[in-house]
Amino acid sequence: MTITPGTPEPVTTAGDPIPAPTDPIPTSKATPPDVVRCAYMELVVTDLAASREFYVDVLDLVVTEEDENAVYLRSMEEFIHHNLVLRKGPVAAVAAFAYRVRTPEDLDRAVEFYTELGCRVERRAQGFTKGVGDSVRVEDPLGFPYEFFYEVEHVERLAWRYDLYTPGALVRIDHFNQVTPDVPRAVKYMEDLGFRVTEDIQDEAGTTYAAWMRRKPTVHDTAMTGGDGPRMHHVAFATHEKHNIIAICDKLGALRRSDCIERGPGRHGVSNAFYLYLRDPDGHRVEIYTQDYYTGDPDNPVVTWDVHDNQRRDWWGNPVVPSWYTEASLVLDLDGNPQPLTTRTDDSEMEVTIGADGFSYTRKGDEAQGFKLGAQV
Amino acid sequence: MTITPGTPEPVTTAGDPIPAPTDPIPTSKATPPDVVRCAYMELVVTDLAASREFYVDVLDLVVTEEDENAVYLRSMEEFIHHNLVLRKGPVAAVAAFAYRVRTPEDLDRAVEFYTELGCRVERRAQGFTKGVGDSVRVEDPLGFPYEFFYEVEHVERLAWRYDLYTPGALVRIDHFNQVTPDVPRAVKYMEDLGFRVTEDIQDEAGTTYAAWMRRKPTVHDTAMTGGDGPRMHHVAFATHEKHNIIAICDKLGALRRSDCIERGPGRHGVSNAFYLYLRDPDGHRVEIYTQDYYTGDPDNPVVTWDVHDNQRRDWWGNPVVPSWYTEASLVLDLDGNPQPLTTRTDDSEMEVTIGADGFSYTRKGDEAQGFKLGAQV
Amino acid sequence: MTITPGTPEPVTTAGDPIPAPTDPIPTSKATPPDVVRCAYMELVVTDLAASREFYVDVLDLVVTEEDENAVYLRSMEEFIHHNLVLRKGPVAAVAAFAYRVRTPEDLDRAVEFYTELGCRVERRAQGFTKGVGDSVRVEDPLGFPYEFFYEVEHVERLAWRYDLYTPGALVRIDHFNQVTPDVPRAVKYMEDLGFRVTEDIQDEAGTTYAAWMRRKPTVHDTAMTGGDGPRMHHVAFATHEKHNIIAICDKLGALRRSDCIERGPGRHGVSNAFYLYLRDPDGHRVEIYTQDYYTGDPDNPVVTWDVHDNQRRDWWGNPVVPSWYTEASLVLDLDGNPQPLTTRTDDSEMEVTIGADGFSYTRKGDEAQGFKLGAQV
Amino acid sequence: MTITPGTPEPVTTAGDPIPAPTDPIPTSKATPPDVVRCAYMELVVTDLAASREFYVDVLDLVVTEEDENAVYLRSMEEFIHHNLVLRKGPVAAVAAFAYRVRTPEDLDRAVEFYTELGCRVERRAQGFTKGVGDSVRVEDPLGFPYEFFYEVEHVERLAWRYDLYTPGALVRIDHFNQVTPDVPRAVKYMEDLGFRVTEDIQDEAGTTYAAWMRRKPTVHDTAMTGGDGPRMHHVAFATHEKHNIIAICDKLGALRRSDCIERGPGRHGVSNAFYLYLRDPDGHRVEIYTQDYYTGDPDNPVVTWDVHDNQRRDWWGNPVVPSWYTEASLVLDLDGNPQPLTTRTDDSEMEVTIGADGFSYTRKGDEAQGFKLGAQV
Repeated sequence: MTITPGTPEPVTTAGDPIPAPTDPIPTSKATPPDVVRCAYMELVVTDLAASREFYVDVLDLVVTEEDENAVYLRSMEEFIHHNLVLRKGPVAAVAAFAYRVRTPEDLDRAVEFYTELGCRVERRAQGFTKGVGDSVRVEDPLGFPYEFFYEVEHVERLAWRYDLYTPGALVRIDHFNQVTPDVPRAVKYMEDLGFRVTEDIQDEAGTTYAAWMRRKPTVHDTAMTGGDGPRMHHVAFATHEKHNIIAICDKLGALRRSDCIERGPGRHGVSNAFYLYLRDPDGHRVEIYTQDYYTGDPDNPVVTWDVHDNQRRDWWGNPVVPSWYTEASLVLDLDGNPQPLTTRTDDSEMEVTIGADGFSYTRKGDEAQGFKLGAQV
Repeated sequence: MTITPGTPEPVTTAGDPIPAPTDPIPTSKATPPDVVRCAYMELVVTDLAASREFYVDVLDLVVTEEDENAVYLRSMEEFIHHNLVLRKGPVAAVAAFAYRVRTPEDLDRAVEFYTELGCRVERRAQGFTKGVGDSVRVEDPLGFPYEFFYEVEHVERLAWRYDLYTPGALVRIDHFNQVTPDVPRAVKYMEDLGFRVTEDIQDEAGTTYAAWMRRKPTVHDTAMTGGDGPRMHHVAFATHEKHNIIAICDKLGALRRSDCIERGPGRHGVSNAFYLYLRDPDGHRVEIYTQDYYTGDPDNPVVTWDVHDNQRRDWWGNPVVPSWYTEASLVLDLDGNPQPLTTRTDDSEMEVTIGADGFSYTRKGDEAQGFKLGAQV
Repeated sequence: MTITPGTPEPVTTAGDPIPAPTDPIPTSKATPPDVVRCAYMELVVTDLAASREFYVDVLDLVVTEEDENAVYLRSMEEFIHHNLVLRKGPVAAVAAFAYRVRTPEDLDRAVEFYTELGCRVERRAQGFTKGVGDSVRVEDPLGFPYEFFYEVEHVERLAWRYDLYTPGALVRIDHFNQVTPDVPRAVKYMEDLGFRVTEDIQDEAGTTYAAWMRRKPTVHDTAMTGGDGPRMHHVAFATHEKHNIIAICDKLGALRRSDCIERGPGRHGVSNAFYLYLRDPDGHRVEIYTQDYYTGDPDNPVVTWDVHDNQRRDWWGNPVVPSWYTEASLVLDLDGNPQPLTTRTDDSEMEVTIGADGFSYTRKGDEAQGFKLGAQV
Repeated sequence: MTITPGTPEPVTTAGDPIPAPTDPIPTSKATPPDVVRCAYMELVVTDLAASREFYVDVLDLVVTEEDENAVYLRSMEEFIHHNLVLRKGPVAAVAAFAYRVRTPEDLDRAVEFYTELGCRVERRAQGFTKGVGDSVRVEDPLGFPYEFFYEVEHVERLAWRYDLYTPGALVRIDHFNQVTPDVPRAVKYMEDLGFRVTEDIQDEAGTTYAAWMRRKPTVHDTAMTGGDGPRMHHVAFATHEKHNIIAICDKLGALRRSDCIERGPGRHGVSNAFYLYLRDPDGHRVEIYTQDYYTGDPDNPVVTWDVHDNQRRDWWGNPVVPSWYTEASLVLDLDGNPQPLTTRTDDSEMEVTIGADGFSYTRKGDEAQGFKLGAQV
């Protein structure tokens, strides 16, 4: 086809640089570990049977291994031991955001990198979870429990096992999403770690509400969402197609569990992906996600969204429920205790966009109309 | 597969008979016309260019014919002249709900049937719209402008013209939806006219909030929704698959017109169809709809939904925006004047289900939990 | 959108009347039974366990009931007892093509209709299969075992049971397809029975190769395919969407049973549906089918396809394997013995279209090119 | 879900190392350029108007720029100037397989790498095509015209422009496929260039028929297919979902151009992707492709397929047409003259698998059955 330029006006805008943080984390002089991708999350759950039922019987993740304290789960196209660990514990929280690195030597780099930043670092030759070997866990400068590993047990990649697929099959882990008070500070640190920004949300004053960052060439391996933190906003799994996500909703309805659908399904503005947000029995948020775009070129264009653009979070302008902005999971330190929260001091995205004090627009310059028929959440 | 009965408990319940109306419309002694299907709606629009742009450029309906006062539109699989007429007029309203009948003689039956009911009846050998021949229009006992016709111009059925399909192609007109104060009264009259109920919404006291009725073997050709009436709630077009409906939403986002999405997309409980509600430039509501089920057997099971079941209107429990309950289009009498409204005196579905005065449940007997994370519309 | 007429030239042509048969079956003076739809097929299978495994474990049809001699299966949206009966027997064949009729009285009409035609008729108040009551079976004038029934046990319609859906879920029985030597003769009889032609395949001389006929408003409840008969060509089940059919193929691959895929998936020219043909363990052919179009209007346009149009059987011009033309299942008389076959004397569709003696074109008038890159089956 | 190991037996087998080549290309001592991805192909076409019509009007690629000699096309999610150049010329052929590299300095590395291998190398600061800057083209050791570039003009990424999407929208360039006589020799050279094998086809004697290799983490950026070469087998573009590929077939049918469908649609065994092969007006082969899997981990498991496994090329066992094995496009040297072909001396995949001299199985050990009902191509 041939396109008439500028009709309609571009839906996205060229990336505005995220402002430098006012209180930056120093740049480590050490070479960072070469992160390949987000690989698994370790979730602490308070009722292992209920969580197992949710992730195994409802969401159809595959059990690689389990015992009375933990269930190790993977997606259909995965060949490493797990993408999710459910571990029984007294407080619902996240014990690790785990990244795969390129070589065994990257573990040495991880130790150096974080040691130089003054972080607590722990290395275990036998790993922190079953199926994973030599691993490094740190309490990172933002307070998150990050893990780096290379050694891992290979298991059958079930990609061709269509006899096992279900209508809502989850095929890959896609990304993490973290809540942190100062997004520019987090971004600068993550860039030092080798991540690159693909999209972000700002306002005209440069206040940054969220940023998406990647190693693998998708929109993200993790995102930083502005809010009281450190907390875990969600972990996301990918499906092949959009109808798979709809099938998950339909199944939840049939099971009379539609109340675990928090938001969606919908189309994101940011990432251009089709999405759904669920809440597990502990309230941990899980996103189901499909069809973002390739970002692997070195000069991949960054997209900056205006915080007041009502299509940034949902391309169809459907409302974001307040709980999605305010609720998130605790994260643990390396002793297993919840990290205390630091309050966000920058503006809150929820407050500047919805309710009596905020505003959003469908068409820039057309703010007077309110943003949505009937959407006065 | 083999099913273990009763696990989970049935999601729908056997039809409860809709109570007899307290103020019934008498049964006409005449044989009713044999209605084949809902065939087209004539909409009066206040800005013909804006409406044409919405239905032709955005929704990709096919122009069969047009002049300065009217646009005649059809869907991709249609072979009759039109499924929608946009006619320029001073007040946004519906001029006709038009049904195809089986034979030319059914027009005589329509005249007799409505004459005996004391309704105003007008017959025009040349039809009321282009492309349609001998037709009968009536002001029916509920105040709606109903049309019956057999003669119609055939046009190319574009079903095989995949060079013309767009991602959100509308392939059939599916149904009408009418607002009327007394649903049992409307149902009894429609049954006299030959329609059959497929699903309905009631409460434990038998108050009936809505009923779906069909001639063709889908869930409906029209539905009666309780509210101040006569008004037109929506007209619905079908797509082939669910992704076509998502494509319409995506296109509206790209055009910065997402604010015409009123509700959805979602899965209905009633009808089991995948849906989306849009509002056209005059506020007329259009549903996009796909995948209900075959209802053509004489003993097709009626499904009755509990008005408090939060999955009846949206199977995923997503909230229904208040405008969807309260707003609807005026309908015209045969002189082209808006019909006055009669107020519903039975309970309002919106009031008994949402907000401070209503309640809904996800699981019967589990009402205490509220109905949805964050869905406090 | 607006269409420029005639660009490209119409893909289908107006229906050419099917020639009158030279050896017609007399028209019964009795009123025919009012057939609602094709409802179930009774298949005789030689290895019940193998057939059960195919239909239940591979195709995921739902077991309503079973014993050591028979399995009663239904589709996800069905509410009557079964759509398919697998009955153990010595010779793979079809014991009944069963149609639902509108009223109990239609059984009397069936008896009269066929008695007057000189056919063998048997009526059983308790039915011929479990779950079905008062029924009439006949050896019809073409030699097929037709059944008519009204009384039937209702079972749970699983339409909303998304916890039970599988990726390739079959949701409805759609149609039968019968092989008979003289298509015009068969059509005339079926029209007497109340069926209407929707599409057919002819050549310029009027030789008729196949015809599709309906009662419910889809393209067909049964089709007549020219060939030695009476035989059963296939029974078809519908899915919701095209990806469901692809999922069945993918599963067959995973099970290392791809050799039961005989033809497809593809898009039909005739019917415009997306299709797949499988062969069960006895060689009975099953079609999986989705997305034909509404045909319920009394003047629904008939489409006649040129037998030499290479897109009539597969819209993408993919080759039809010879077995699809030549192989079909025996049918039984009311004593359970296979009906002898009568040879077709008209031209064979296979011979006039493929191989050294036939020809097909992609574009009319462009016959010289052969019909398909590499498709020299 | 929980999986019972080994039921059915694994559909794929662990990678067998591809044998070392008997006549290896020496390993360059220079550091290879860091290739990011396959980025565009330059095709020489003999009738520019006909080719433009095919790629722009039928396949809906986006025209970035054009003049009387060339058309520059991109896919919907692309942000670089083009993914395909159609250039008018006397002989249909491929002028360049172009790869994006990570930095401008990688061009120096490309020059060194190929100079040391004794290849002809040409560098142009202004690029070889519009929209691309400093570039290196080489006649590589296998005879292919490879290009490496970093500098490129950015254009609008149309990912969010759903007003422009068509039912068969191509969203990314996915890979190249090259025909070369000695696959192990080609693989060794490509590994030296930094590519990694993801899947391959071998027989029990180690004869290697094809290998897939990647830089970006999909199954491939290019594949090496055994045959007389150097030739170009195909260039592939990705869609979002499977129905998009079906829509392309449907459109070709509507345009009466189904004879450009050479093979498919189908599911590949190798890559697990859904595919379609078309032939453009010059016979250049284009694949449409969707849904392979992530391969970015350093120890991504290699999958080796048995050449006799009838599901390796089509997971559903559908036959591969002979033209797909035998026909391919010429490639040009840097003067624009077609490269002479070297004959493959190893066994031909076609001859060992189909026809009188070959065999394939659906189930290993079950060879006697032939491989497919009716598939005697």
